[in-house]
Amino acid sequence: MLEKSIVKHIKQLKQKKFRKEFGEFLVEGFKGVGEAIDSDFEVVLVIIEGNRRDETEMKEIIKKAEKNGVPVEFSGRQDIGDIKTTDTFPGLMAVIAQNQVTPEDITGEKYIICLDSVKDPGNLGTIIRTADWFGIKNILLSEDCVDPYNEKVVRSTMGSIFHVNIFESAGLEHTLKTFKEKHEYKICSLVMKGEDLNKLKATKKTIFVLGSESHGVRKEVEKMSDKNYTIGGKGDAESLNVAIAGGILMNQL
Amino acid sequence: MLEKSIVKHIKQLKQKKFRKEFGEFLVEGFKGVGEAIDSDFEVVLVIIEGNRRDETEMKEIIKKAEKNGVPVEFSGRQDIGDIKTTDTFPGLMAVIAQNQVTPEDITGEKYIICLDSVKDPGNLGTIIRTADWFGIKNILLSEDCVDPYNEKVVRSTMGSIFHVNIFESAGLEHTLKTFKEKHEYKICSLVMKGEDLNKLKATKKTIFVLGSESHGVRKEVEKMSDKNYTIGGKGDAESLNVAIAGGILMNQL
Repeated sequence: MLEKSIVKHIKQLKQKKFRKEFGEFLVEGFKGVGEAIDSDFEVVLVIIEGNRRDETEMKEIIKKAEKNGVPVEFSGRQDIGDIKTTDTFPGLMAVIAQNQVTPEDITGEKYIICLDSVKDPGNLGTIIRTADWFGIKNILLSEDCVDPYNEKVVRSTMGSIFHVNIFESAGLEHTLKTFKEKHEYKICSLVMKGEDLNKLKATKKTIFVLGSESHGVRKEVEKMSDKNYTIGGKGDAESLNVAIAGGILMNQL
Repeated sequence: MLEKSIVKHIKQLKQKKFRKEFGEFLVEGFKGVGEAIDSDFEVVLVIIEGNRRDETEMKEIIKKAEKNGVPVEFSGRQDIGDIKTTDTFPGLMAVIAQNQVTPEDITGEKYIICLDSVKDPGNLGTIIRTADWFGIKNILLSEDCVDPYNEKVVRSTMGSIFHVNIFESAGLEHTLKTFKEKHEYKICSLVMKGEDLNKLKATKKTIFVLGSESHGVRKEVEKMSDKNYTIGGKGDAESLNVAIAGGILMNQL
């Protein structure tokens, strides 16, 4: 059974304000916890359901944790209801320290994917996963995106959250201006009426901005953009899902 | 306030077995209900929250329904909890008759998107929406996909469910064999190790098969395929979300 203070701490980490305050977040399941230990994120604590400690997969995680100096605690059945972040607890979870990412940390590569006001956790998680698939490591979030350490986001990244650098801007226009001036990035936005994305030839360092589903890329950013692109449709749908648009874009790069 | 029989009927339509039995499904919200009335689907009944009947958007829907001979009922506050399919009832919903789609109905165009065992409602809905965006009208589902008339699927299509033809196969291998032999379609599957999708040149009538996230395209279908393609990744993610893969494919077509 877990100490009360641990249960309390985990319950708090389900809320954004405590995740910010403690600089930590939660991940559940084998894939997530395994990738976390293998990554350069600091794993603060691994929690395993006590009566499943002898399962092969659990033993592997325990071994891996011990090898990396990560403490392991065992939960009782009565703890599960309090700590789980999904309906069905997969038997293990971990508390992870958030990486402190500076603007400079995301300037190392040619492309940056920037999301403006993306609120849906599944969309953000899927975009992170897709970026990781295409080898894009650097992600810039506007001040009003969903918290990337929200458990739904973390879950839908399928472990890819441990492979990317996410910088959360406090003011997107200002951040983009700095990246343009100081780091010589071009800015390209995906909008409803722009040049055909299939004609994209990105030869320079570029930040690609994807907007929210309801409002698109904010006007100020569209104006700052060096070029605006559109994914051409010919059917009757009003818009594309932002994660799909992101996938098509990243495949193009 | 709604008649008890209507409330009961709607509650039943939240279950797959009753949707199959009655050949009906539910849609909520302005966009969905509006698109339904405008489409060639038969709208059986529109339900509007009584105390919101004077809102401009509601009046428009009522007018549109009357013009199309669709009956409108008004619900009391006490009905909402029983009929709503989302946490926050958007004030209106409709009962729609499912279109009866035969294999022949989806053979009218060059491309068919086929999904093998896709279980996630959000993924199926997003794929339908993306197909609609790219003007692909015909969709073939394996026998074990999530019910396309599930309310979560319907919601994530954002109205696109009313623009496409969905044929639900009772046995995918058999259906594909028939399409190959009788309708002269080629079959292309998206798999983990195939030719680079960017090299795709589909000149002939083709069925594109996307597999489930956990198991990919079933072996029997991979074997039947005329060609297998892969979306090349260079990062550390293990796989792409099936809806993202579908989006990249459809953009390519």
